[in-house]
Formats: sequence, C-alpha cells, structure tokens
Amino acid sequence: MPELRRDPIVGRWVIIATERARRPQDVGRLREPPRGGLCPFDYAQEDKTPREVYVTGRAPSAPANGPGWKVRVVPNRYPALMIEGELGREPAGIYDRMNGVGAHEVVIETPDHTRDMAHLTDGEVAEVLCAFKARILDLRNDMRFRYILLFKNHGQAAGATLEHSHSQLIALPVTPRQVAEEIEGARRHYEHRERCIFCDIVLQERKDRSRLVLENDDFLVFAPWAPRSPFETWIIPKRHESSFEAEPRERLGLCAAALRSTLLRMGVALGDPAYNFIIHTNPLRDPPSLSYHWHIEVMPALTHVAGFEWGSGFHINPVPPEEAAEFLRLVAT
Amino acid sequence: MPELRRDPIVGRWVIIATERARRPQDVGRLREPPRGGLCPFDYAQEDKTPREVYVTGRAPSAPANGPGWKVRVVPNRYPALMIEGELGREPAGIYDRMNGVGAHEVVIETPDHTRDMAHLTDGEVAEVLCAFKARILDLRNDMRFRYILLFKNHGQAAGATLEHSHSQLIALPVTPRQVAEEIEGARRHYEHRERCIFCDIVLQERKDRSRLVLENDDFLVFAPWAPRSPFETWIIPKRHESSFEAEPRERLGLCAAALRSTLLRMGVALGDPAYNFIIHTNPLRDPPSLSYHWHIEVMPALTHVAGFEWGSGFHINPVPPEEAAEFLRLVAT
Repeated sequence: MPELRRDPIVGRWVIIATERARRPQDVGRLREPPRGGLCPFDYAQEDKTPREVYVTGRAPSAPANGPGWKVRVVPNRYPALMIEGELGREPAGIYDRMNGVGAHEVVIETPDHTRDMAHLTDGEVAEVLCAFKARILDLRNDMRFRYILLFKNHGQAAGATLEHSHSQLIALPVTPRQVAEEIEGARRHYEHRERCIFCDIVLQERKDRSRLVLENDDFLVFAPWAPRSPFETWIIPKRHESSFEAEPRERLGLCAAALRSTLLRMGVALGDPAYNFIIHTNPLRDPPSLSYHWHIEVMPALTHVAGFEWGSGFHINPVPPEEAAEFLRLVAT
Repeated sequence: MPELRRDPIVGRWVIIATERARRPQDVGRLREPPRGGLCPFDYAQEDKTPREVYVTGRAPSAPANGPGWKVRVVPNRYPALMIEGELGREPAGIYDRMNGVGAHEVVIETPDHTRDMAHLTDGEVAEVLCAFKARILDLRNDMRFRYILLFKNHGQAAGATLEHSHSQLIALPVTPRQVAEEIEGARRHYEHRERCIFCDIVLQERKDRSRLVLENDDFLVFAPWAPRSPFETWIIPKRHESSFEAEPRERLGLCAAALRSTLLRMGVALGDPAYNFIIHTNPLRDPPSLSYHWHIEVMPALTHVAGFEWGSGFHINPVPPEEAAEFLRLVAT
C-alpha cells in the first residue's frame, strides 16, 4: 500500500509509492519502452490495460474493452495511489502518515500511436478535455477525495514512460500545496481589492500584449510575468470561472483549440520539446469561488532543476517571457 | 542586467537571467564541454576565469591567479545575478520587479580535474567547507544581501555544465521561499513546544535508527521521513546551531567527513548518480535562532520532475527512506 507522509517542518506531503519501483538501485531506469504493435494503448491491445472506466466513440453494439474507441480512460497499471481503503491518518512519533488512498487514471487521447496531442484535430483535443471533465464529475462522488489533478507528461525528459499520446489524473485525499498557495494568494488579493487576481492578470496582459501568444473568443494564451522555466505558458478563460469541470462543452472546444495551437507552436519553435501541462482548478469540496480562477500551465522541460532551484524555490530562467511570447506568436502554424 | 520578478499570485520570485542564454531556441542546449587541458578550472588556466576572490594553499610568494592553489573561489563567468547596482524595486502594473543584484561565485574544490568530491580526502572537503564559511563572512558585509545559498550540481542531469569538481554560491537580496517556509514551520513548532523541531528529529532518528545512514561525534546522516526524491539524505549537526558559518573549523572537519562518506556511499550504491546538495542556514540579518537549525540536503537526480510534481508540489517517491537508508548503510566504503 502506498503511503502519504507529511514533512514535519514545512508540512509538505510526499507519496511513498513502493509499487512503482523494483529495487532501490533501479530507480530512474525507464521501463522497457513498448515496441511496434505491442503498445498497450493501441487498438486490439485493450486487454493489456486495466478495464476502462470511460470511453468515447465506440459503437454501442461493440464490446467494452475492445477496439473502436476514440478516447479511453483506464486505471494506471502502476498507480501512485490505491483506490481501496480508509485514510488511516495517524502519528509516527513526531511524524504524520496516512494510507496512499486515491485514484490514478490514464487518459489515452487517441488510438493512433503516431500522433501526439499537438497533431490531433481541435475536435479530438476537445474530446480529451470532455473526458477530463467526465472523470472529475464521476470521481467527486467519492467523498475521500479533495482534489483531482489532471496533467500530461510528454517526452522522456518530462517524465513520460510511454510514447503513445496520453494524459493522467490523480485524485488526492488532500489539496496539494501548490494549489492551496494559489488559492490563498488569490484570496488575499480579493480581500484587498474585491477583484479576482487572475481576471486582473487577463486585463493587464490583453492591454500590454507583450506577453500574449494568442487569444480566441473565450481563452487567452500568454507567458506569465514570472515564469519558472523558459517558455512556461498559461491558458486561461477570459471570463471568470473557478472550476474546470463547470465549463460547458462549447467552451471546452475553444480551450482545446487554444491548447492545441500552443503545443503545436512550441513543437515547431523549440523542436518538439518534452513538456508537461497541468490543470489548476478549485478543490472538489469548495463552493464556486469569486477569487480563484482555473487555468492550464504548460511547461516545456528545457532546463534541469538544479541545486539552486531545489534549495531556494527560486527559479533561474534565461528567457524573458516577452521574448518567449514573441517567439511563439511568430510561429507559422 | 538580470531581473528579479515576483509572481503576483503566490509571491514566488524568479530570476530572469538573460545573460545566460543566447537565443530562445538554444535554451537547454549545453555549452560545449571543455576538452582535455583546456578546462578553466585546471592549473595554468587561471586566466580563463574571472579573478579569484578567495584562495587557499598557494605559497605566499607565488603570484595571485596562478597555479599552486588547493581551493579557489572566483565569480561565475555566466552569473545569474550581477554584483553591481541598486535594488530598484518597483511595480510594473499589477506586477513587481527589482534589479537582479547579487553575487554568484564558483568554488573550485580541487585543481585535480579527475577527482570528484566523493574522492577527495576528508581534509580536502574540510577546506572546501572552510571556503564556504569564509565567503559567507565576507559577503555578509554587503548590506544588500539577505541570504547566501551554497549548493553543488554534480553531473549533467543535476544541472552541472562543467565536469571539474566545483560548487557554487549565490547571494540574494531576498530570503528564498524554501528557507522562509522551513524557518516559519520551525518557529511554529517552537511556539508550541519550546523545542527546536530539527533537534526533535535528531532525537527521534537516533532512537529509531531505521532511517540512519551514519553518524560521527557531531553529525548525523539520515534519510528524512518524507523525502521528495529517492535517496534524499540530510546531514545535520547533532548540537543545536542555526548558522553554518558559526561552526568552528573542527566541527566543519567532522561535517566534511560525514558529507564525503555520504557522497561516496551514493556513488557506490547507485552507480555515480548525478546529484545536488544545498546548505540551508539562518538568513544573514537574523539573530542566532533557537528554533532554526542549519543542515545539508543531498538529492540524487534519479527521477524527472514531471507534471504531477510541478502542478501539485507533491512528490512521488518510489523508494521508502527506510530502504534507502539501509541500502546506503550497508555500502562497503
């Protein structure tokens, strides 16, 4: 059973996920990448994954866990957290622990082994975002969970272990620190100004335009003022909304178009870099918020996190966001 | 001039260090590694670095910036921050910025191109720690600086761009977040218990022993309860002391022995992994603290930071610290 442990000094939780490694000295060695037709995310390999929890595109008459799907969501075969069990929160001397209870699912974005997310159609990416939403709406019924993080690792340097285009979802029994800090910062701003700080950022970025990458009717894509890594890029709804899963299908379509264009521009400009994206949204049990505002953060994995970043929480970024945005803006797509 | 920018939501500072990159698309490509005798950290190549600010081992009659030294400290040729200038803190619409004022120095640990820190003698590592201390005592006279972070990147995957054994120092005009959070957490613990949390950890680890790697008269080496990455290992003085630079030479000698043995064990156990270490110590302008306790954090770079870690601040660690500690304990050195 994986375990959640709390750092006694700063209160950071860590997942000790023993099921994912074999021997201590093998850590960091990648699992053998799948070859040719043996990829578990291809058609006719559905029995290589746990049974699907969500699927789209397959004819109603076709059997479950067979080919014919467009997007398929399955539990992760090497989950960081386990779906069964009680939280069992307890002390260990001066320390704190609980059972590693949570959900860890894989969203297979396309049956086509050869196309990554940047090369899907806008409609196909929209289907992926709709799958994200559907899984949140289902998992939020499990009252043990407080937060669901959706994320994508593309490329080995960004932590991906399989090449076939997929994203992931982890449902957690605690709200993660990064989200809690954003919520707290946004709450303080709201207290002072009675405005959402994210809405203020949208206004300033649309006026200034130097950090803008693109926009459509509903979404703005921009390089944030203080990016942690080169070409960090945010995708944010222009209209205030605290929860990703509250967005209707049409707006998710415009979000998909903005996301796909961003990934394509990065791919062209930077030579198909490895990247991560994550969705930050309001915690499951919180009411809709006037101060918090969901968004997507995209981060190419171009630089290594080194000692200084580890030790300080300060990031050193050699590319000003104004230059990064201009570079992405000028890409011909 | 590099710039410090503050994230408007969570207050995180980022260094925008344009001098370190050439074109945006070149980010992440390593500088050409030095070949053979042309390493700027070798003897007779002293003119390839900025002029030394500290040196040990050279005969008093020998000229400065020539061979014959044992440890040599020079300004970084590609500094993340610049030593000259005022802070110039100012708003930019809803954002905040200041000039990237600070010191960025390189500690060349040995003239021998072929030996890394794990393969120096205890006495040589002690000389390196004494150089760290001397540089802190000198730089603290510059009242613009609030914190000095000492760190080492060993190996490409840990962000090192030169192979020759060296560590680095960055003096900052603000106290970094990670340190501020530790200080705040320790302060809260002290308020409740009137005890230092680090001293409590030392007591529990010495009693429990399952996470212990080694100890000597003055220092304890252990795997922390909630390690962010596999084989994260801490070196901590057993006697309470808030500042690294307050330690006398003899205790730095015992620290050096503990550090060197730790690095050697990691190298043998894990096949010379890339690693980072950082020193966390009390901020320059704070009085000696009863609640904060300096220490060294060593982190092998075995896993990639992926989307989940970026987005949550949660780390997934496949190796329990009890297994990691046992593994390091049993290494024959």
